[in-house]
Amino acid sequence: MTTATRVAVLGCGAIGSLYAAHLARVPGVEVWAVDPWAEHMRTIAHDGLRVTGAAEFVAPVHGVTRADDLPPCEFAIVATKSQHTRAAVEAARAPLQGAAVVSVQNGIGNEDTIATVLPHVIRGSIVTAGTVTAPGIVRYDAPGDSWFGPFEPSPAPLTRVERLAALLTEGGLRTHALADARGPQWTKVVFNASTSPLSALTGLSIGQVCTDPGLRPLVDALIAEAEAVCEAAGITLLRDPRDAVEEAITEAFWHRPSMLQDVEARHLTEVDVLCGGIVAEGARTAVPTPLHQAMTALVHGLEDSWTTGGPR
Amino acid sequence: MTTATRVAVLGCGAIGSLYAAHLARVPGVEVWAVDPWAEHMRTIAHDGLRVTGAAEFVAPVHGVTRADDLPPCEFAIVATKSQHTRAAVEAARAPLQGAAVVSVQNGIGNEDTIATVLPHVIRGSIVTAGTVTAPGIVRYDAPGDSWFGPFEPSPAPLTRVERLAALLTEGGLRTHALADARGPQWTKVVFNASTSPLSALTGLSIGQVCTDPGLRPLVDALIAEAEAVCEAAGITLLRDPRDAVEEAITEAFWHRPSMLQDVEARHLTEVDVLCGGIVAEGARTAVPTPLHQAMTALVHGLEDSWTTGGPR
Repeated sequence: MTTATRVAVLGCGAIGSLYAAHLARVPGVEVWAVDPWAEHMRTIAHDGLRVTGAAEFVAPVHGVTRADDLPPCEFAIVATKSQHTRAAVEAARAPLQGAAVVSVQNGIGNEDTIATVLPHVIRGSIVTAGTVTAPGIVRYDAPGDSWFGPFEPSPAPLTRVERLAALLTEGGLRTHALADARGPQWTKVVFNASTSPLSALTGLSIGQVCTDPGLRPLVDALIAEAEAVCEAAGITLLRDPRDAVEEAITEAFWHRPSMLQDVEARHLTEVDVLCGGIVAEGARTAVPTPLHQAMTALVHGLEDSWTTGGPR
Repeated sequence: MTTATRVAVLGCGAIGSLYAAHLARVPGVEVWAVDPWAEHMRTIAHDGLRVTGAAEFVAPVHGVTRADDLPPCEFAIVATKSQHTRAAVEAARAPLQGAAVVSVQNGIGNEDTIATVLPHVIRGSIVTAGTVTAPGIVRYDAPGDSWFGPFEPSPAPLTRVERLAALLTEGGLRTHALADARGPQWTKVVFNASTSPLSALTGLSIGQVCTDPGLRPLVDALIAEAEAVCEAAGITLLRDPRDAVEEAITEAFWHRPSMLQDVEARHLTEVDVLCGGIVAEGARTAVPTPLHQAMTALVHGLEDSWTTGGPR
């Protein structure tokens, strides 16, 4: 009898739930999900984690509300909102000390945060999407490939990246292991960072932003700024972000990006790992990013206005 | 017996009312105010226009709701919101054909609009502020000097600028006639254009915007962009806009600029004559203004979101 491969999933929202469930149906894999949402964790622990939508199955997953209850794990998948990355990995520092840890979060910079706490880090970029529809149940909306690669400053060995990618692919989430996963990650980020803040600041849908005669030049200027950073950093995008803009116009005109949804719900946004990630890489490579800096500052200003009062 | 000097005032909100009342108490001046707000015009026509606050008097003013009822005038003062400039001067084209016409509106570019309709234009910049508190009554809040000068592409003669400035000064609104009034005008605009849109987009007060560690660099970058335009256009600012920033922080920290008030009331803003005016002059002088372009586009996008629907 062989020992199970243990995988921790930190943050069990839609993405964490999808990754936990798909991995848990691979023979020899034991999945431990951690999330403070007690009812979701309790339901998963008692009844298993149910996937609906693009796939239909129930998988056995250990659900706990505190990282203290994790056993030592060989792999970990970080799927919290980016604001909670540090707290999540710090709480799991002991059981994940030997783990290869991948971020499947939005944006750029989550790996840097993980690497301040844990030694073996994997850069991840996914297009998977879904929604937790009830405690213990996640709807799988958008299948799509994922790309993992060693996080350069603090890497997990490529063999372990390949092993995790193979397990996920076997579970039904096709994942590619690459020596340099920055290209896929930045391809997604450049488009998001160059459109989402405009949507968040104006209230317009993604298609409205990308077709507005005033805003579209700003989208293009933000893309050009990010491309200059990629050029300096040696990052090769998988596709022209302008093609993603055209695709958004024709296929998702009325989509309200998550940053706009966050603003409407008065939740903190992920601008720091979108525009902020581009600004940070620009600073590292000495490429000016005044427009991404402006977007970062404006979205943070908007967030601040919800809590900083004063006479009206 | 000499004929009265007739002055038309187009737009009789707070600023138009203050200018109309102060001029109307000068012997030999006859003031005709035009505004669609019928109750205000009727009260003025019957009871005179009452000033309270920094000055207390009642002045006899002709109030009409349609420019068709204006007699030919020697001078005109345009005091509408900038969005209504064109309609206001077009309606008054015949009676103002021989008039020297000054804009006392916010921003840059109103004179250009006036000059497309009328031949003798004066550039004006004021700091006067007040509020219409009831029909026929305007509260005079902030006295301060005004600066008038011939509008370069389509000028009224300097002698007529001096005559209008002398009448206003005699009426109690100290006004300086200059050969080049761009300096005072831009001094006000550069500060407003570099701070108000940030306030409008985030909901933060002027002092919050100017002290926020993320937004303050954006304020400074917007100022620097505008200063480069001034440099290329040969415009000398009266003071460093950064001093106005410091003054706003210490003296008006919680002030919510009119652009933010417009956004909160879902009224169209005057961004086109603030950031948009700097962009236009930048285009004329071949100075890039990407940040002022971005602010213009974002504020217009926000305005558009109030009327362009779509599935939510």
